[in-house]
Amino acid sequence: MNDFVRIVEVGPRDGLQNEKQLIATADKIELIDRLSATGLRSIEATSFVSPKWVPQLADAAEVFAGIHKKPGVSYPVLVPNEQGYERALAVGATEVAVFTAASEQFNRTNTNAGIDESLQRFEPILARANRDGVRVRGYVSTVLGCPYQGEVPLADVVRVATRLHAMGCYEISLGDTIGVGTPHKARAMLQAVAAEVPMAALAVHFHDTYGQALANIATCLDEGVRVVDAAVAGTGGCPYARGASGNVASEDVVYMLHGMGMSTGVDLPALAATGNWLAERLGRQTGSKTGKALTVS
Amino acid sequence: MNDFVRIVEVGPRDGLQNEKQLIATADKIELIDRLSATGLRSIEATSFVSPKWVPQLADAAEVFAGIHKKPGVSYPVLVPNEQGYERALAVGATEVAVFTAASEQFNRTNTNAGIDESLQRFEPILARANRDGVRVRGYVSTVLGCPYQGEVPLADVVRVATRLHAMGCYEISLGDTIGVGTPHKARAMLQAVAAEVPMAALAVHFHDTYGQALANIATCLDEGVRVVDAAVAGTGGCPYARGASGNVASEDVVYMLHGMGMSTGVDLPALAATGNWLAERLGRQTGSKTGKALTVS
Repeated sequence: MNDFVRIVEVGPRDGLQNEKQLIATADKIELIDRLSATGLRSIEATSFVSPKWVPQLADAAEVFAGIHKKPGVSYPVLVPNEQGYERALAVGATEVAVFTAASEQFNRTNTNAGIDESLQRFEPILARANRDGVRVRGYVSTVLGCPYQGEVPLADVVRVATRLHAMGCYEISLGDTIGVGTPHKARAMLQAVAAEVPMAALAVHFHDTYGQALANIATCLDEGVRVVDAAVAGTGGCPYARGASGNVASEDVVYMLHGMGMSTGVDLPALAATGNWLAERLGRQTGSKTGKALTVS
Repeated sequence: MNDFVRIVEVGPRDGLQNEKQLIATADKIELIDRLSATGLRSIEATSFVSPKWVPQLADAAEVFAGIHKKPGVSYPVLVPNEQGYERALAVGATEVAVFTAASEQFNRTNTNAGIDESLQRFEPILARANRDGVRVRGYVSTVLGCPYQGEVPLADVVRVATRLHAMGCYEISLGDTIGVGTPHKARAMLQAVAAEVPMAALAVHFHDTYGQALANIATCLDEGVRVVDAAVAGTGGCPYARGASGNVASEDVVYMLHGMGMSTGVDLPALAATGNWLAERLGRQTGSKTGKALTVS
């Protein structure tokens, strides 16, 4: 089995968007440039959602324009609709990401649209992206549970992931948005989706709300997934559990992968140093245990 | 496969012995009594090592005498030698634990004795325990790495575990003392030991220094282990990486097990409340992500 795992670093977007402490534009640019230097191949740079929703990322255009685009590295940006797509394109984005939930109730609460309406909204984006030579990644959130409806049927996850793939997303990131999943459930979910969408087009995205993320990732790696989303310093949080842990920390994921004999192309000490630097900017302890251990030992 | 997992709660001993903040004897007793009420079946209460080495546990006799011994719950105590065994017996302990490393260098540095010398020292303890009707648990530390010698050969882990079992220890706890292990290494180690010692006589003991503990535990559960050591609130730390994370948090382990459809007999909200209470006594945040999520949500 292929032992290269691509880490999709989502800290600058998914991580920061849930951090209260506002970060200066220059620091965001420095963060991404430092991440580029670690050997990461995919770094989600920012989000072109409305600044009303995500004040932390109101400087999306400046950040994207300011970063050094390292050859061989992708810098996807999140776009909620065609307007966001146009803003992303205007600053030169060559990869975007769209998102919908597997939970109808979650999607309605967060985007004022049902899942089918969201998917329809993405159709013109995917059509334009196809013409513009822009790659599109698709996020499916709440794949292992929803703060409103609780259980999310596997069939709903499979349906949404399959639709996004059929619409032209080159990769589908399956997100346990509220971090409630455990290994056997994660495996069952991944198996169900992989029965319809090729494993090579799937990524896993775990939040560490209950500390389960790495265990879930290890199980999904055993099933064959080779793309893992993570955020340096474990930034983010859970808007549904204030004060809870955020995204799984990239440093801890890379430590595990290297320990398993897998390769990532990432320089772990450089990544950990970047995470610790970011935690300082956020005025809090790093959320990465590996980051802590490598600093203090 | 049997789906009951016994948690051996090691917080009052392994957790607290690495916490700088001294805890009042009455609080230790309250901690253990609260843990007893959660449904845990094994709670390591304290250690009869010299107070010179572990000032936090200088009140071992008072703590053991003060706790309410709930019927059906074991309260093992750590003993380093015959003198410790006698002190434990004097206060009515019916289960003790002995410990040695798999790494020769670690054992020499920490106990001024080679592994074989440590094992010889345990022989009279095991003989007396056998006569006294006292059960003995054996700890093997540094099973996945040593801060001094680095790699620890599997053969050394197997040799020490096999010896302890042959000497009469009813259970051997395999400890990744410095938390450097990752899932595939943990699996290989457990498989190697289980080829010589029955799986039913094995426990796993992971520290979360690099955030790998739950992933390792999940892998070992897949291999068939059904006893897991953990510390409420993730107390402890790593003397070889100051400021690093401690034992895997019991709350996170129980959350995972229940999510996997396994049973523990433990009331998770009561356990999390106990962990959060303990963290307050220690004047720091809980080390359990589940504890955090359950408090704040």
